[in-house]
Amino acid sequence: MNRPTSLRKPRAHRPGLHRHHVVIVGAGFGGLAAARALADAPVDVTIVDAHNHHTFQPLLYQVATAGLGGDDVTYATRGIFHRQANASVRMGRVVGGDLDEHRLDLADGSSLGYDHLVLAAGAVSDTFGIPGVAEHAFGLKSLRDALAVRAQVLSCFEEADARPELIEDGLINIVITGGGPTGVELAGGMAELIDRVLAHDFPRLDLRRARVVLVEMGDSLLASFHPKLGAKAKATLEQRGVEVLLGTTVDEMRAEEVVLSGPLLGERATIPAHTKIWAAGVRASPLGDALGLADGPSGRIPVRADLSVAEHPEIFAIGDVASANDGDDGSVLPQLAPVAMQGGEHAAAMIGRRLNGEATEAFSYTDKGTMATIGRASAVAQLPGGIRLSGLLGWLAWLALHLVQLVGFRNRANVLVNWAWNYVTYDRASRIIPEAEVGPEQVTPAFRSDSGGIHPPEK
Amino acid sequence: MNRPTSLRKPRAHRPGLHRHHVVIVGAGFGGLAAARALADAPVDVTIVDAHNHHTFQPLLYQVATAGLGGDDVTYATRGIFHRQANASVRMGRVVGGDLDEHRLDLADGSSLGYDHLVLAAGAVSDTFGIPGVAEHAFGLKSLRDALAVRAQVLSCFEEADARPELIEDGLINIVITGGGPTGVELAGGMAELIDRVLAHDFPRLDLRRARVVLVEMGDSLLASFHPKLGAKAKATLEQRGVEVLLGTTVDEMRAEEVVLSGPLLGERATIPAHTKIWAAGVRASPLGDALGLADGPSGRIPVRADLSVAEHPEIFAIGDVASANDGDDGSVLPQLAPVAMQGGEHAAAMIGRRLNGEATEAFSYTDKGTMATIGRASAVAQLPGGIRLSGLLGWLAWLALHLVQLVGFRNRANVLVNWAWNYVTYDRASRIIPEAEVGPEQVTPAFRSDSGGIHPPEK
Repeated sequence: MNRPTSLRKPRAHRPGLHRHHVVIVGAGFGGLAAARALADAPVDVTIVDAHNHHTFQPLLYQVATAGLGGDDVTYATRGIFHRQANASVRMGRVVGGDLDEHRLDLADGSSLGYDHLVLAAGAVSDTFGIPGVAEHAFGLKSLRDALAVRAQVLSCFEEADARPELIEDGLINIVITGGGPTGVELAGGMAELIDRVLAHDFPRLDLRRARVVLVEMGDSLLASFHPKLGAKAKATLEQRGVEVLLGTTVDEMRAEEVVLSGPLLGERATIPAHTKIWAAGVRASPLGDALGLADGPSGRIPVRADLSVAEHPEIFAIGDVASANDGDDGSVLPQLAPVAMQGGEHAAAMIGRRLNGEATEAFSYTDKGTMATIGRASAVAQLPGGIRLSGLLGWLAWLALHLVQLVGFRNRANVLVNWAWNYVTYDRASRIIPEAEVGPEQVTPAFRSDSGGIHPPEK
Repeated sequence: MNRPTSLRKPRAHRPGLHRHHVVIVGAGFGGLAAARALADAPVDVTIVDAHNHHTFQPLLYQVATAGLGGDDVTYATRGIFHRQANASVRMGRVVGGDLDEHRLDLADGSSLGYDHLVLAAGAVSDTFGIPGVAEHAFGLKSLRDALAVRAQVLSCFEEADARPELIEDGLINIVITGGGPTGVELAGGMAELIDRVLAHDFPRLDLRRARVVLVEMGDSLLASFHPKLGAKAKATLEQRGVEVLLGTTVDEMRAEEVVLSGPLLGERATIPAHTKIWAAGVRASPLGDALGLADGPSGRIPVRADLSVAEHPEIFAIGDVASANDGDDGSVLPQLAPVAMQGGEHAAAMIGRRLNGEATEAFSYTDKGTMATIGRASAVAQLPGGIRLSGLLGWLAWLALHLVQLVGFRNRANVLVNWAWNYVTYDRASRIIPEAEVGPEQVTPAFRSDSGGIHPPEK
């Protein structure tokens, strides 16, 4: 090839000089925030991630319900750090290391040394050991998961259109486990996909025979929100045709059905369903275990008030992989994106202090509110000061928040404009199945997941 | 689910009445043109395709070189025919049939009866039986192919960034076989991807060590164009760093190298390359063989002057799957999109005549020009009257033509605007690898292709 004519980014320092090296494991919300916060620090930063892209997880359910394309909710990590002179990106999976020697080992056999380490590897699905879930359910933690769900649902409807006698076997039933924001948003999105889009695509199909079922173990949806918002979410979903089963647990999953127990169904009742999506629990990435830092079955890494690890002050753990307590009230911090982002900024600031020989300080999370969307023009939002929004107002708040977060990525505004246009006009162009001929039996568990907690059988 | 509230498309006739049924196999350019041309005919139309989407093949090379996303060049077939009251879509693969009984058999075991049949199943890659090509090369006939090529190239660069000692084994070499428009466009696109985008993504990689090689058996590129345009394409590609090997044949392909013979290299010389893309030949879809209508090794279905099949006047064959002669000069019609589109419209018109008891007439192709792009702001175009355009002017003509063809799809204008914006600003957001951790050895041949002519080993 020719010598590239385009500008390379400037070298930040004279070659040969060793600079303080900060390694950040994970290119999610926490890792990105930490890396960016170090842009002006006298350090070299290496971001390591198993994927070559950052995934905007809050919108994965949109990809799964064919509302957005995969390229709309992901961004090449290298592209994010194009212009940050002190940042390098490395694609790889950390499988171990020697913390005394300040060394990480990667799956490809290489190693990475560090002076400071920020662990931001996030969370993976947790099936709680329920029989059949790992083999038969989809997760929703990665782009691959979301594309697999989409392919599955669309293929099932194609199959039902060709062979309607299979509908009674649950071919076009979708069971979602987990009444938190992910499950609620997924259920709302599926109802919308079926009602507004597939109704046009499959005019011969009697879509009243399709079922979207949301299963929640507790006695309300959105348990982390005010009870009134959980009730509002339930009412809205039911109005859109979703069956909400509260106080219901999954006993077992099989290839084409779910076994449940609960007040409405009784003990070990079965619902036939070819599509089962697990959004009921997460545990920390196995990274904590791999480095010998995890504590307990959740796999989270305990940290001190300043987010550093007790025996290894040069290591910080932030976001979903960490178990941290809020500096003000001591409560365990929830696994949410803003917690990860603020934690990442805090870790970066603490590294700066260390380099200046200053003492660190405790991390204190500022809750700016949480929200969940239930579909078109309806959401619930819980803001500081006890403000609660629902319906259209909640949806506008949700839209504004995501717009701000996405626009934080250079040049992403056009994507959101594009999406909003599609959203308003119901033109869901993203219902493409790339594979040649995908029937439900062809979307195998092995294809299904890299969600860590759901372990696929050997291909 | 609730009874859908949105409008269903109106019934075109009273239920119970049997209407003349036209089945169209293939949702490519030809099949779509035939189906649309029958919109006002007193017939029912069923479009059958193995995919659930139409693929805009001329832009697949953009997906392969991370310039566009998969959703930008495909459109859900059901979405295309939403508003055509007499059209139904069926996802399935035709594997045989009984032409005397007017019946097609599909892979899922179902059957489809027809009164008239339009075969528009297109072409697949043809490896000419060269050893190793089917196992080790990628095709570029489907979305799945393009996504596989993209994942492969990006993964190879990631691997090279982590382990530069592997570069001498051809890790970041790309060999493209075939000097027609597809090969030329792919080579130009790859050069641009490496030079303009990956140069920023991989600042530590010496990209002068990456090679893009275009291999052509004949003595010029773009053999179907005027020789001056072929020479212009070669000069432009070489200026962009592509190595063009004319008069060179592929003897064999292996996992990490290509064996070639030609004037510059000699006999059975090897070029190390982890990425090999086959764009050197197509044969007709196996549909012709499956129905016992194909003639000769190319697999094309011979047709009469009016595009109907000799022994089965109710069957028409159009586009790449057919072997037709031009009504005016008797020359064999080339395998090009406009030929398919005009053929589809002609077949529809002939069906209309049959229903009116009128005689059919010969098909005559109107050549409105052909073009190929060599990358940003450069293309060659050959228009009627001997007009030849190249460089920026050719590129504008190419852009205008594709805009018109895409805008033919309802609501696709925003996509082209989006693409143009990305194109101008070099913001290639589509360099996402969905899989968790894809090294070159993980993009297996089985993943590689549904191109028909390249047969993957059993998964």
